[in-house]
Amino acid sequence: MRTNPPSSLPPQSLAGTTQPPTFTFPIRIYYEDTDAGGVVYYANYLRFCERARSEWLRVLGVEQQQLVAAGGPFFVVRSVQADYLAPARLDDYLTVVSTIHDLRNVSVIFFQRIFREDKLLFTTEVKIVPISSVNGRPVPWPAAVRAQFHEQLSPHPSR
Amino acid sequence: MRTNPPSSLPPQSLAGTTQPPTFTFPIRIYYEDTDAGGVVYYANYLRFCERARSEWLRVLGVEQQQLVAAGGPFFVVRSVQADYLAPARLDDYLTVVSTIHDLRNVSVIFFQRIFREDKLLFTTEVKIVPISSVNGRPVPWPAAVRAQFHEQLSPHPSR
Amino acid sequence: MRTNPPSSLPPQSLAGTTQPPTFTFPIRIYYEDTDAGGVVYYANYLRFCERARSEWLRVLGVEQQQLVAAGGPFFVVRSVQADYLAPARLDDYLTVVSTIHDLRNVSVIFFQRIFREDKLLFTTEVKIVPISSVNGRPVPWPAAVRAQFHEQLSPHPSR
Amino acid sequence: MRTNPPSSLPPQSLAGTTQPPTFTFPIRIYYEDTDAGGVVYYANYLRFCERARSEWLRVLGVEQQQLVAAGGPFFVVRSVQADYLAPARLDDYLTVVSTIHDLRNVSVIFFQRIFREDKLLFTTEVKIVPISSVNGRPVPWPAAVRAQFHEQLSPHPSR
Repeated sequence: MRTNPPSSLPPQSLAGTTQPPTFTFPIRIYYEDTDAGGVVYYANYLRFCERARSEWLRVLGVEQQQLVAAGGPFFVVRSVQADYLAPARLDDYLTVVSTIHDLRNVSVIFFQRIFREDKLLFTTEVKIVPISSVNGRPVPWPAAVRAQFHEQLSPHPSR
Repeated sequence: MRTNPPSSLPPQSLAGTTQPPTFTFPIRIYYEDTDAGGVVYYANYLRFCERARSEWLRVLGVEQQQLVAAGGPFFVVRSVQADYLAPARLDDYLTVVSTIHDLRNVSVIFFQRIFREDKLLFTTEVKIVPISSVNGRPVPWPAAVRAQFHEQLSPHPSR
Repeated sequence: MRTNPPSSLPPQSLAGTTQPPTFTFPIRIYYEDTDAGGVVYYANYLRFCERARSEWLRVLGVEQQQLVAAGGPFFVVRSVQADYLAPARLDDYLTVVSTIHDLRNVSVIFFQRIFREDKLLFTTEVKIVPISSVNGRPVPWPAAVRAQFHEQLSPHPSR
Repeated sequence: MRTNPPSSLPPQSLAGTTQPPTFTFPIRIYYEDTDAGGVVYYANYLRFCERARSEWLRVLGVEQQQLVAAGGPFFVVRSVQADYLAPARLDDYLTVVSTIHDLRNVSVIFFQRIFREDKLLFTTEVKIVPISSVNGRPVPWPAAVRAQFHEQLSPHPSR
């Protein structure tokens, strides 16, 4: 597993940074994210990763709401594998570094790492599938979406 | 403000207890509810109160999803007044005691108190309004809903 | 993977039911749990599973706060593998069925399934490790905790 | 109530903007913030407001964790009055505009408004009190904190 820190994060960007094949997104930790153990509650790392994926799609021009409005598919999480390496804490300023590790006709796998400066705190592999908004069945990616994902596909997944 | 403890709470009831004009509902505090201050995060008391209102409506036979599906109104929170008297903590077993303090054509006011045993921790007054699911405008209560609320109306609001 | 429904769930129990080696715990879905897709937000299944584990530990007499107060270890999530099979929705009444699949000196693996009636919606394998509350390092389980887990250990993990 | 839009919001700033006596902070709406009604869940507006207050304090150099570590007080929410004027939705880009409306020896009142462009969606008045981290009793503000709040105090509260 690569533990290199994300490079060149613009410290104040809300929209994140795309350096294909990597998307970098900042997260500040507030009270709402923490628990009585003094650390970030374990389910909340998944919220941070979803924020980063949403912003990446926005940057790529993949508008989920418009897709669905046009009869296209929902993007649904099918599975998550997550490793908790070290805890994040109140006031931490974190970075979510996302890559696409695999792209199939009916799925895409995001690999996402969360850092505090150069310390790796959390990694996850999230499998997303397109589901028909009409009948709830798996469908292939719309061609334009697949093309966008393909362009971001990590040539040598580093995990 | 009454600080009497809720009486006769069945300790293991998930569905709560209706003793018109009062509805009693239990809440257990988990890690997800707390923050790094070691107490329940302030916004989460509103979640507990919404759970209690939802269960009360369920017991009263007011099915919000069916109402909307039949062209009826959404129930929307219009305002909240909340007082934080003492903190709840991890593993606490709390009780939400709800009453209806006011009923108008186009609004209802719930008064809700949260206790740990007989200690009052939190009170809130929540104003709910019915909003047309067709055009988003305020509408009167459906007659059946209004009748149910009227039956639960607290004769002598104790606040 | 077993898809048998949980048997004999007392419908109104907040504290859950222990039938070694299985613990059954109910969850009601409220607005706070759902998202604009009309289904339960993906991170929230982890909250439901943590509630179930907390209640199981409580039933077993493993008091995490007392352990830490006595210099014992924190219980920390080290990894999660989760599969999303079908969505839960507003007002659903779910059941979390938990078993212990593996017990080591320095870890325990919970296998947890979430059902709506007899339909399996979600499964997860959660690895928990004891971490010294003094220096943050992995430590062995306290003997009493290990004995409790051992008693609940699933003889033939069904996954 | 002023409904003027916040002026000159740097569109990508995570840290917000201080133009005494106003602090402006951006919020993007993600799935986690919404509910099955298709809008932002009502308790979550309080989370957004707390984020804005935390960033404002950070900009002002009021470090809550350091204060407590040095024996100083916790900042605790004592009361909330909130009005929900119009709903926020998935993908909205909002602005939290915060001012200080009142400063006493043992309390401060923040007035916070949330806008989508120039449309006012939500307002709240939040009363915060300093509580001794030693004995849990109300205490006066530390002099440096009070001086910072005083400098930000809105001369003519606009509500």
